[in-house]
Amino acid sequence: LYRKCVKLVLVVEYDGTNYCGFQYQVKVPTVQGEIEKAIFQLTGENVRVSGASRTDTGVHALEQVVSFRTNSNILKERIIAGLNHYLPQDVAVKVAYKVSDSFNIQTQAVSREYNYYIHNREVRSPLKNGFTYQVKRTLEIGAMNRAARLLIGEHDMGSFVTDFSHSNIKHSVRKVFVAQVERQGDEVVFKIIARSFLPHQVRNTVGTLIRVGLGKLSLSEFESILEAKQPGLAGPTVPARGLLLTKVNYPRPLGEYDEDL
Amino acid sequence: LYRKCVKLVLVVEYDGTNYCGFQYQVKVPTVQGEIEKAIFQLTGENVRVSGASRTDTGVHALEQVVSFRTNSNILKERIIAGLNHYLPQDVAVKVAYKVSDSFNIQTQAVSREYNYYIHNREVRSPLKNGFTYQVKRTLEIGAMNRAARLLIGEHDMGSFVTDFSHSNIKHSVRKVFVAQVERQGDEVVFKIIARSFLPHQVRNTVGTLIRVGLGKLSLSEFESILEAKQPGLAGPTVPARGLLLTKVNYPRPLGEYDEDL
Repeated sequence: LYRKCVKLVLVVEYDGTNYCGFQYQVKVPTVQGEIEKAIFQLTGENVRVSGASRTDTGVHALEQVVSFRTNSNILKERIIAGLNHYLPQDVAVKVAYKVSDSFNIQTQAVSREYNYYIHNREVRSPLKNGFTYQVKRTLEIGAMNRAARLLIGEHDMGSFVTDFSHSNIKHSVRKVFVAQVERQGDEVVFKIIARSFLPHQVRNTVGTLIRVGLGKLSLSEFESILEAKQPGLAGPTVPARGLLLTKVNYPRPLGEYDEDL
Repeated sequence: LYRKCVKLVLVVEYDGTNYCGFQYQVKVPTVQGEIEKAIFQLTGENVRVSGASRTDTGVHALEQVVSFRTNSNILKERIIAGLNHYLPQDVAVKVAYKVSDSFNIQTQAVSREYNYYIHNREVRSPLKNGFTYQVKRTLEIGAMNRAARLLIGEHDMGSFVTDFSHSNIKHSVRKVFVAQVERQGDEVVFKIIARSFLPHQVRNTVGTLIRVGLGKLSLSEFESILEAKQPGLAGPTVPARGLLLTKVNYPRPLGEYDEDL
């Protein structure tokens, strides 16, 4: 039996609470590690999967995009049910596509979308605790939204990075397409869509926006922090549990890259 | 210092995942036990609290109503922040009222409202897993809703009880004010408002309604089960994690019973 190597792309949802982030690390639970383990259990192959957006410890995903090559002749239709059978309950494959070997989910992604959820009530909400960060005092959404809009366009985001010196990031200019803050019931949601992000950029941005919403930072002070292009002024880094990777976008909808087996 | 005994009513939200139900039991974690522990830590008093609706192991509450008597002279305004300081993250006091000693949260409740959340998609949702029960095949909501409406009014709910013989329930007639099924995105929500409920009544009802929604049970078969008034035909009992106590109603809004300290 001749087995042709194929490239598969998966859309994956996960509750990141119990994982040390997406990326594989030895001896600690990671989402990538769980997916690789499930692929091994299903196909017997040891593969390395890659993810389109590297989520940190405790960050959740509604639609992470993952890809890997396989020599297994398992039917694409069986991949979803098969992997979900072996995956833990807090990780699930939602869709699977067979794509051309030249399709690269990381370099061909045109943007990543993240939402950050703030529960803005004096009393905490146990039902929302795993997916929101509580801010007790009422936030001024108008001011936060005006500050958020300053992020739109191409900017050096050096002020919003944590630990820049130790990372292997070459430059800190990032292109932001959408940045907005809106109230949804007793939640305040920060939505940001960008080509890519620096480590902790979204969480440091939200921490800074909260200071604006609490009246501790003016719009011009927020602008000065952005223009300073150096860490230390922004933040604090808000907790990972409020952050959700909602989507990764490609030039065309992902389904259009599908080549039926 | 003369300390007058006062009766306090709390509105409490909890994620029931890690609790063996509301009601106190020795050696296992219960919501009542956590609240009593927090009251002890805050006031030094050993009190027994009562709850308006006894939720089972793993069932959640958006607005459970709890009451207890205290000789502590702690200000009502400090009760909320004080108890939340000592309570675990998955339980929170949202509102506190000082009420007349004659006000009884159990006997004066006119109705209890419960929602049951079904995630109706082929692939499970890790982000919703803690608060929904997954049904893979598409449910026929119209049929489920027609069956649900048969429950409205005063009926002997004996068919929807689990373990009736071992409980100390004297009669199984219950008055239902609202019973409906509706689709909300990829969720199917069963809402029921009744004077009170029998053990496992809601979860056995939902299990039976799912059989209707899957075409395994006709409307008249559902009606026959209701009319049989005996356990064994209904169900299966769906998991507790999809069930949420949303509200307990009194003749007047709870705030109107408040007597300022």
